[in-house]
Amino acid sequence: MDLNADSGESFGSWTMGNDASMFRIVSSANVACGFHAGDPVTMLDTCRAAFELDVRVGAHVGYRDLHGFGRRAMDMSFDELFGDVLYQLGALDGMAHAVGASVDYVKPHGALYNRIVNDVEQAEAVVAAIHAYDPGLPVLGLPGSALLRLAEESGHPVFREAFVDRGYMPDGTLVPRSQEGALVHDAAAVVERAVRFAERGEVLAVDGTVVRVKPDSLCIHGDTPGAVELAAAVRAGLEEAGVEIESFA
Amino acid sequence: MDLNADSGESFGSWTMGNDASMFRIVSSANVACGFHAGDPVTMLDTCRAAFELDVRVGAHVGYRDLHGFGRRAMDMSFDELFGDVLYQLGALDGMAHAVGASVDYVKPHGALYNRIVNDVEQAEAVVAAIHAYDPGLPVLGLPGSALLRLAEESGHPVFREAFVDRGYMPDGTLVPRSQEGALVHDAAAVVERAVRFAERGEVLAVDGTVVRVKPDSLCIHGDTPGAVELAAAVRAGLEEAGVEIESFA
Amino acid sequence: MDLNADSGESFGSWTMGNDASMFRIVSSANVACGFHAGDPVTMLDTCRAAFELDVRVGAHVGYRDLHGFGRRAMDMSFDELFGDVLYQLGALDGMAHAVGASVDYVKPHGALYNRIVNDVEQAEAVVAAIHAYDPGLPVLGLPGSALLRLAEESGHPVFREAFVDRGYMPDGTLVPRSQEGALVHDAAAVVERAVRFAERGEVLAVDGTVVRVKPDSLCIHGDTPGAVELAAAVRAGLEEAGVEIESFA
Amino acid sequence: MDLNADSGESFGSWTMGNDASMFRIVSSANVACGFHAGDPVTMLDTCRAAFELDVRVGAHVGYRDLHGFGRRAMDMSFDELFGDVLYQLGALDGMAHAVGASVDYVKPHGALYNRIVNDVEQAEAVVAAIHAYDPGLPVLGLPGSALLRLAEESGHPVFREAFVDRGYMPDGTLVPRSQEGALVHDAAAVVERAVRFAERGEVLAVDGTVVRVKPDSLCIHGDTPGAVELAAAVRAGLEEAGVEIESFA
Repeated sequence: MDLNADSGESFGSWTMGNDASMFRIVSSANVACGFHAGDPVTMLDTCRAAFELDVRVGAHVGYRDLHGFGRRAMDMSFDELFGDVLYQLGALDGMAHAVGASVDYVKPHGALYNRIVNDVEQAEAVVAAIHAYDPGLPVLGLPGSALLRLAEESGHPVFREAFVDRGYMPDGTLVPRSQEGALVHDAAAVVERAVRFAERGEVLAVDGTVVRVKPDSLCIHGDTPGAVELAAAVRAGLEEAGVEIESFA
Repeated sequence: MDLNADSGESFGSWTMGNDASMFRIVSSANVACGFHAGDPVTMLDTCRAAFELDVRVGAHVGYRDLHGFGRRAMDMSFDELFGDVLYQLGALDGMAHAVGASVDYVKPHGALYNRIVNDVEQAEAVVAAIHAYDPGLPVLGLPGSALLRLAEESGHPVFREAFVDRGYMPDGTLVPRSQEGALVHDAAAVVERAVRFAERGEVLAVDGTVVRVKPDSLCIHGDTPGAVELAAAVRAGLEEAGVEIESFA
Repeated sequence: MDLNADSGESFGSWTMGNDASMFRIVSSANVACGFHAGDPVTMLDTCRAAFELDVRVGAHVGYRDLHGFGRRAMDMSFDELFGDVLYQLGALDGMAHAVGASVDYVKPHGALYNRIVNDVEQAEAVVAAIHAYDPGLPVLGLPGSALLRLAEESGHPVFREAFVDRGYMPDGTLVPRSQEGALVHDAAAVVERAVRFAERGEVLAVDGTVVRVKPDSLCIHGDTPGAVELAAAVRAGLEEAGVEIESFA
Repeated sequence: MDLNADSGESFGSWTMGNDASMFRIVSSANVACGFHAGDPVTMLDTCRAAFELDVRVGAHVGYRDLHGFGRRAMDMSFDELFGDVLYQLGALDGMAHAVGASVDYVKPHGALYNRIVNDVEQAEAVVAAIHAYDPGLPVLGLPGSALLRLAEESGHPVFREAFVDRGYMPDGTLVPRSQEGALVHDAAAVVERAVRFAERGEVLAVDGTVVRVKPDSLCIHGDTPGAVELAAAVRAGLEEAGVEIESFA
C-alpha cells in the first residue's frame, strides 16, 4: 500500500507543513509546482528530501492561485488549463532531475482535483497535458473520477486513493465537508480504517454500511496539529497488520 | 551567422511583438518563460511556430517581474536565482517537447542579462542552474560578460552576440542608452553594420574607431514600429553579401 | 444618456485600448484597478486623462486574475471577495484623488460582472464591500441583476446599462455569445439601436420583438479594430437625435 | 515612547507572526499592504484588531515581491515606485476606514526601507506618493535617512525609530547583519537598551561608546521564537522605569 501526502507547500518566507517528518512516513509526496504553492527553492528542497528518503515525487498540479492556495474552482479554457498543467509538469521535472529524482506520477491539487471528478472538459485538458508531457506517466486520483477514467483511456497507469480521515457515503463518495461525519477525528478509528482499506478493500460508511473501496494509495494530511503523529500511527498500524508500505510508482 | 530575436512576449490577453513575421527572418527565437512575459499558451504557440519554421528555441529566462517586464534589476540570493532559472528552463522545455521542439540554448533577458555582465554571484547562479538542467546546453550572451566566461568554464558551448542597432564604444562595450549614439536609427546603416559584423568581424564605434567584434549571432529587435521591415532588410543584406543565416545551436 | 467604456486596461509594458480617443467620446470610464488589468502608473494616467476631459471615473473591480484578464469565473468566499473588492476601491480612489478626481461609481468587470447577475452570495460580497467603502457610491450594472437589486436595497443609487452592439432576447436578456445574433456588427444598426435605447427606451430583439430596455448608460467597447470610429458614430448619432451625453454620476 | 512592530504579514493560507499577542504590547502596527505580504482579508482583520486594542495603523509599504517578502532591493523608476506606494496607501486606508480606523502613518518595509536610507531617487518617489496621498501623514523611519529628510522637507511630521535588538556602530548606524554584534540576543540586555533609549536618548555601541540616539519609537520584532515574550519584557521594563507607551500618531 502506498501512503501519499501533500508537500512542498511553503512559499518564499511562508512555511507550511512538516515535510521532513512526513517523508519518514509516506511513500509518495505530492509536490506543489509553484501555481498554488511552492516556490522553486522549496520545490528543489522538497525533491531532494524526497529523493534522499526514497519517497516518490508526484506533480501536485493546481490552479494558478497563490492567494487562494488553489482551493477555489476556476473556469478555464481547455488551452489555458492544458498549458498551465504542462508548464507545472516541466518545471517540477526540471527541479526533480537536478537532484537525481524525477516526476513519478501526477495528482491534481485542491479545487482542480475536485473539479475534474466531474468536469469532463477540464479533466480532458489535464489528461491531455499529462499525456503531452509523458504518455506513460502514472496518475493518482479519486476512484470514479473523470480524471482517472480519461487517463486510463489515454493509456496512463492510474491509481486510486482513499482518505483515512474522511467519512464515506454508502455509494462510496466522500461525505461533503459541510455535513456531519465528514471528518474522522478519532486517531484509533483512523488507523483502523487504514488497515481495513488495506486488508479488506472496504470502509464503513457513515450509516454503517460496508462499502467496497480498494485503494492503491491512502492520502494522509500533514499540515494540521497532530498530523505527523497520526500519520505515524497509521503507518505503524499498517505495518503491524503486515501491510507493506511502498509506492505504486 | 545566426539572427536572434526576443519572442513569445505576450501575456494572457495582452499581445506583444510580431513573432509570426519574425520567425521567417531569424534563425533563433529567445522565448519568454513566464516570469517576465509569456504565459503557457503563448509559450506553446511560440515553440510550435518556431519549430514549424525551423527556428531554434532559446530559453529567455528573466527575473520574476511581470509588472516590470523583467527590466528592473533585483537583488536575489544564489539559491533564489538558481531556483528561478531552473524552474523556467524546465517549464519551457516541457512546452517545447510537447510540440516536437526542445530548448536549444539559453539567453538571459532584460535586467538579468545586463546584471550578469558584471555581477559574478548572479552569473554563477544562472550558470549553475543551466548546468544543473543540462551540462551541454549552449549559452548566448554578451562578449566579455561574466555569464559567458563562467558558462565556458563550466564546459558549456558559448556564443557571442552583437547588436545591429546599438552604438559601440571604442572598447567594444555598448553606448549607454542615456548617451547620444546609443541607437542607430538609419536602416541602411543598420544593414551595413550587420554585414560588417558578419564579413569582417568588426564595427565602427561612435568615435569612428574600428572595433573588433566577431559575433556568432546578431540580435534583432522585433517589437518596435518598422522592426519587422528592418529585420527583413538586415537578412536580405546579409544574404546579398553571401552570408548564410543559420543557427549556432 | 451616459456612455461608458472600459479603460486603463494596460499592464506594465503591455498596452491595450485607446483611452485617449475614447475619453473624447464617453462620459464614464470603467477604470481597471490592478487585479485583472491596470498597474498603478496606468491607473494614475487613466484617472488624470479622465479628469482632464471631464469623464467620470468608475471602479472596474474584477477577479484577481491578470493571466485570465478577469474573464474566468472563480469561486470565492464572501470574505475573500469582500476584501478584494474593498482593496481595489481604496487603491483606485487613492489614485483618483491624487489627480483631483474621485471614484464616482462602481461597475464590476468581466466574469465577476457576469457571475453576480445571478450568484447572490458573490453579489452580496461585492455590495457589502462597496457599502463599507462608501454607502452612497453609485453602482452601474445589468438590469435585473442580483448586483443592482442588492445595491438598491442597501441604499445605493443604481444605474442600468444596455449594450449597443449586443443582441437581445425577447425577455430582455442578452443573446449568449455562443449563439447567432449575439453581436451586432453593422455600424448603422449599432447607431440606430443606441438612438432607440435613448429615445424610446426599447430595443429590437433577435426575433423582431420590441423589448422595453430603459438604460441610464450605454456600454461601448473600445478595444477592437474600428471601435473608436464606431463609438464616435454612436455619440454623433445620439447628439444628432438631440440626446445629451452626460454621466449619471 | 512608541513601540512599533510589523504586522498583517500572513498571505492567503500562509500565516506569519502573532499579531493578536503583539497588539497588547505595541502602540503602532506596521500593516503590510498586499505587495510583499498581506492579502485583503488579513489587512482587514489586522486593522480591526489594531483598532479594537487602540493600536495605531501604519502603512507598511513595500516592493511588489511576494516571493521575496519585499526583502530584495529592486530598481524602479520614480513613476513606478510612486504608483506602487500610492496604490498601497489607498488600499490599506480603504480597509482601515471600513473598520473605523485610518492609516495614521507610513513606514516603508524591508528592502525598500533600507534602500531609501541612501537612494535619493527612490526616497523622493516614496515621499511624493505619501504627499500625494495626504500631505500631513506622519512618516516613521531611520534617523538620518533620505526618507525622513525628504519627508520633513515636504512638511510631513517625521518620527525616528531605534532597534532594541540591533547592535549600533559608534556613528549611530546599525551594525551590518553580516558582522558580529549585529544582533543583541540577551533578553535582559534588550530590555536595558530599550530603557536607555527612552530615558537617556542613547545606546551603547559595539565598541562601548555611548551614542546619542533619541528615538520616537522603538521597533520590536514579533515573528521569531520567543519574540512575544521579549516584547512583553521590553514593555514591562519601560513601564517599570516610568516610561509611558503611546503612539506618536
